Amino acid sequence: MTARAAVIMAAGQGTRMKSPVPKVLHKVGGRTLLDRIIDTVQAAGCERIHVIVGNHSPEVRALVARRLGEGAAVLQDPPLGTGHAVLCAADTLADYDGDVLVVNGDCPLLQASDLEPLFELRAGGAALAIMGFEPQDQLLYGRLIRGADGHVLRIVEPSQCSEQERAVRLCNAGMYVADRADLFRWLSRLTNDNPKGEYFLTGIVAEANAEELTVRAHIASETAVMGADTQMQLSQAEAVFQQRRRAHFLAEGVGMPAPETVHFAWDTEIAPGAVVEQFVVFAPGVKVETGAVIRAFSHLEGAVVREGALVGPYARLRPGAEIGPDAHIGNFVEVKNVAVGKGAKANHLSYLGDGEVGAGANIGAGTIFCNYDGFFKYRTVVGEGAFIGSNTALVAPVTIGAGAMTGSGSVITRDVPDHALALERSPQADKAGWARAFREKKSAEKAARGKK
Amino acid sequence: MTARAAVIMAAGQGTRMKSPVPKVLHKVGGRTLLDRIIDTVQAAGCERIHVIVGNHSPEVRALVARRLGEGAAVLQDPPLGTGHAVLCAADTLADYDGDVLVVNGDCPLLQASDLEPLFELRAGGAALAIMGFEPQDQLLYGRLIRGADGHVLRIVEPSQCSEQERAVRLCNAGMYVADRADLFRWLSRLTNDNPKGEYFLTGIVAEANAEELTVRAHIASETAVMGADTQMQLSQAEAVFQQRRRAHFLAEGVGMPAPETVHFAWDTEIAPGAVVEQFVVFAPGVKVETGAVIRAFSHLEGAVVREGALVGPYARLRPGAEIGPDAHIGNFVEVKNVAVGKGAKANHLSYLGDGEVGAGANIGAGTIFCNYDGFFKYRTVVGEGAFIGSNTALVAPVTIGAGAMTGSGSVITRDVPDHALALERSPQADKAGWARAFREKKSAEKAARGKK
Amino acid sequence: MTARAAVIMAAGQGTRMKSPVPKVLHKVGGRTLLDRIIDTVQAAGCERIHVIVGNHSPEVRALVARRLGEGAAVLQDPPLGTGHAVLCAADTLADYDGDVLVVNGDCPLLQASDLEPLFELRAGGAALAIMGFEPQDQLLYGRLIRGADGHVLRIVEPSQCSEQERAVRLCNAGMYVADRADLFRWLSRLTNDNPKGEYFLTGIVAEANAEELTVRAHIASETAVMGADTQMQLSQAEAVFQQRRRAHFLAEGVGMPAPETVHFAWDTEIAPGAVVEQFVVFAPGVKVETGAVIRAFSHLEGAVVREGALVGPYARLRPGAEIGPDAHIGNFVEVKNVAVGKGAKANHLSYLGDGEVGAGANIGAGTIFCNYDGFFKYRTVVGEGAFIGSNTALVAPVTIGAGAMTGSGSVITRDVPDHALALERSPQADKAGWARAFREKKSAEKAARGKK
Repeated sequence: MTARAAVIMAAGQGTRMKSPVPKVLHKVGGRTLLDRIIDTVQAAGCERIHVIVGNHSPEVRALVARRLGEGAAVLQDPPLGTGHAVLCAADTLADYDGDVLVVNGDCPLLQASDLEPLFELRAGGAALAIMGFEPQDQLLYGRLIRGADGHVLRIVEPSQCSEQERAVRLCNAGMYVADRADLFRWLSRLTNDNPKGEYFLTGIVAEANAEELTVRAHIASETAVMGADTQMQLSQAEAVFQQRRRAHFLAEGVGMPAPETVHFAWDTEIAPGAVVEQFVVFAPGVKVETGAVIRAFSHLEGAVVREGALVGPYARLRPGAEIGPDAHIGNFVEVKNVAVGKGAKANHLSYLGDGEVGAGANIGAGTIFCNYDGFFKYRTVVGEGAFIGSNTALVAPVTIGAGAMTGSGSVITRDVPDHALALERSPQADKAGWARAFREKKSAEKAARGKK
Repeated sequence: MTARAAVIMAAGQGTRMKSPVPKVLHKVGGRTLLDRIIDTVQAAGCERIHVIVGNHSPEVRALVARRLGEGAAVLQDPPLGTGHAVLCAADTLADYDGDVLVVNGDCPLLQASDLEPLFELRAGGAALAIMGFEPQDQLLYGRLIRGADGHVLRIVEPSQCSEQERAVRLCNAGMYVADRADLFRWLSRLTNDNPKGEYFLTGIVAEANAEELTVRAHIASETAVMGADTQMQLSQAEAVFQQRRRAHFLAEGVGMPAPETVHFAWDTEIAPGAVVEQFVVFAPGVKVETGAVIRAFSHLEGAVVREGALVGPYARLRPGAEIGPDAHIGNFVEVKNVAVGKGAKANHLSYLGDGEVGAGANIGAGTIFCNYDGFFKYRTVVGEGAFIGSNTALVAPVTIGAGAMTGSGSVITRDVPDHALALERSPQADKAGWARAFREKKSAEKAARGKK
Repeated sequence: MTARAAVIMAAGQGTRMKSPVPKVLHKVGGRTLLDRIIDTVQAAGCERIHVIVGNHSPEVRALVARRLGEGAAVLQDPPLGTGHAVLCAADTLADYDGDVLVVNGDCPLLQASDLEPLFELRAGGAALAIMGFEPQDQLLYGRLIRGADGHVLRIVEPSQCSEQERAVRLCNAGMYVADRADLFRWLSRLTNDNPKGEYFLTGIVAEANAEELTVRAHIASETAVMGADTQMQLSQAEAVFQQRRRAHFLAEGVGMPAPETVHFAWDTEIAPGAVVEQFVVFAPGVKVETGAVIRAFSHLEGAVVREGALVGPYARLRPGAEIGPDAHIGNFVEVKNVAVGKGAKANHLSYLGDGEVGAGANIGAGTIFCNYDGFFKYRTVVGEGAFIGSNTALVAPVTIGAGAMTGSGSVITRDVPDHALALERSPQADKAGWARAFREKKSAEKAARGKK
């Protein structure tokens, strides 16, 4: 197979988003558009990947370096048009021999299988393969003008269209595959003698035709190639993504009475036989095993839920939460960076942060792992079969022994031995009639205030 | 009226659900498909009901026994086809004189009124009445082939259809009514000389025609007869169910600004003049009276909300919660098995489990009813007009007298007399400058760690 | 410009709502229908506004007095029809010189721009301008019968329509503009010789034609003029309202991955560059600044969220909550009437009611501001950089000094000096083997109970 490289166009700021965040750092399914397109071109077999970046965004460059290494980002500065953008990668790809895919950085729904036809057109003899699509609303898109033999002759910007050209349904999706040498030769010949004074990438079609080379188009679905220039489009892409994941998990055997109310991340894993109730959000990094039930109004991120565990309603699992088999995490309970053992329970109004809970332990309502002193975080260890009384504060670092108990309302600051009871409490004092006297006094005060 | 019996087909495991739970135990509106079809055939006047069960599911047999008595389940073992399944009920119905309805166990949206036309066709002279429908996608369904007089001649499986038969729009919904004696006579003549080696129930049409008896079809809506073979279909049935309940409650005069975000159970009761805000889940067993307001993000199950009560946002009412007239249950409050008196309030971050709260009592933020010692559950009783301070732990069994008060942060382990104040607290100690010294020390530690 | 007045029809009880609340007090976007129509006619430039009210609803009259002053409500008693209703305003408008708009009180989606064409028709010479629309379902609406020149000749009630009239698509939306003197002269001539014995407002068309005056219609969209007679229609209007707000905020540059799950109020303000996650409810009175993130499952009312603040998931902000720049309010945290300073944090399971939190302060998990003694509310002040330990109860009125700390589980009833540590706690006592003995005893009890 011919070697494959990709040039990803990510230099635009994306002002139509009206957001301080660069366009390609907006997310679908909890993953940035740039990460998504890198995933896609990697899955399509591109071994060398360069990303054209602008000088406005250190965050974009940092992402590229993290994903693809230091040399992967190619700076376009100043920005002189899309053709100029790709041309910026000429030197870095000078030693490369094979096909080059050019693709925009904001194609949130594009999949590797959508790109394969372009490489196939190339393999079938086309010097340049272009992705076309037939949008519902053609207003904004350049038209692909084809000859009688179906070969693409040129791309015409909508503002330059003749009436006949305007009627053409096939539009340019802005993705191209060509041999590296051809591509950069064409690019080097582009001119900027147009009203905007820019070098347009679309001009490579005319260059290829001028060399009497074959240019062919593949017609993709509008969904596959949709961009995300605005918050509205981004949310539409998110909706398609979610719809696909919902259908996927239902087909896999995940029970969901109201799939339209469940939101997934790009990497959510849920096993067949698990159940997800209404109004659940999966942020990235979640794995749910079979037989587990995620109840309504739960929010999970970076967490593992083992077989048969019961989570929620109103549970929040944060990164590092690992809920053991048959364990229960109940309402208004937050778990962060805690491994909860098999069959352990924390059912009400608790914060478990940094530590571990042994198998079969019971964490009473209102328990807090006091993990932070304003400077450092410390671990709380609750032993197997321990019973933490309600409203207990466990001041970390602290270890509650196996089978130990704590009295309700205690503040536990010292390790508790196995099977011991720890108690921090004063004697209960009852003041007879005090409440009546208080009420009478306050009622009088209230009446007096009312009179003023 | 002719007596009516029903045979419900529930022997299949339902492998397309890809779930460890047998198909007919999946739920719509919080009620199993099997319960729903039993409800439906009971509402249709069937006095004797038998359910054909497989040998794989003790849970299905247990449900049948609970709903219909020990003799109601009829075991089909081994499974030799749908005709064989019904035939298994021949002995148990041998003494029965009247019509028999045969229906699948997974018809989540079927209503008694949908079945009535079949019984009417029987009463009008048809020996066999069949439910037909005209599905959007006919691919998977047997065709009902009718003669010129509209009588059904045979049912043809989709794989056996001629081109002409394939074009027939009327399909078999798998519901039949016939006289008991006729039905079992036809069934006894079925053969299994087909590629699958099974006895197909659909063969009874040919048998009836062979006896020159009349077979007629009623055409139902696709929704009425839809099955639920997959998680996707199950969620679609749930969506239709929810849409119907939403329209029902709006028509009844329940205020719902966003009905599409409210999820009901099969038995939810809400009176006109009640209001339900966004994102509310009603699990089974809930009754809401007029003037009550269920605020956003609330979850209710097995609970009663009396006139004028205010519940939520973020309230969780569990079985046995009874919220009295004009009482308030607020955010992040869980109530289980507690009767809350008229005008009482528990507005913030509390767990009320097992007990009662008197009229006009005020439960402070962060209050916990400590109802569990790891072995038994105990009751907490809060008297009329009592005032429970914030962060109080009431260690059950315990009674707080009428008009009594508890100090904030107290652990109350002994009964408190009426109108008394109970306090469990140490003196507050202030250590001047301690926090500054601590901060300096920890800052230095942090700096030192950073240097390493 | 001709002076403009408005007569709003709000005398009906709205029995089809099946609600104890008068129809015009039902809400869309958290604002009553009556407030909304008053907003609309004010925006349309109506300087004098009268509201026709029935004698059944003191709340409606109170709202009118609050919005428009004591003289604005005009009582219609007894109700003798829509024409009679408007006529009730004759005396109070007797001194007025200009156009009068007549409009129903339940037009939740009507905007000032929808009304402008009626005033323009008047300015262009029509004596009477009528709002028409072409509904999907014409069944319930009077038809506007026009002559060859397009002038409206009469309005025919659906029950009175000839077959030809029934086919007319243009219907009456019940909004009119005419000169004050003309309007009341026509009204004074209406008769009630019809089966219902009522004076119908629609009769003014015939009166104007009888005087050979010009009557013209403007055709509005069905959405613009839709009424809200039932809970279903009200929820449909709410859905349109929400859809419009979602599109508006996306276009403004607010990031929303799932806009269909975000619910706005009529006055919600969100700056470009803010992000709103899934399942968020904005009740009235909320302002969110740029860079702020409102996480999933949050509920906000009467609150301000400053630049870069992070709210939720599961945060409830109530009236008077002001979350400072870069401050964090986390899960299961309720804030009411508290100003939270820059960079301060309250991340878990807390209730902050009545007071202030200084910049950079850290409020530990499970902290409660004990603001209520059953009679009065008191303030809690937490100083800059203070550190409140977990499970602390701050009993107001109380001030925690700058840089001060409180020990976990303390009940703080006295002011804490700057940089001091305050502690309320008993020594921890450990009883060796106590838990094991307890477990053995209870296990035996449980076994014994099981035997009985």
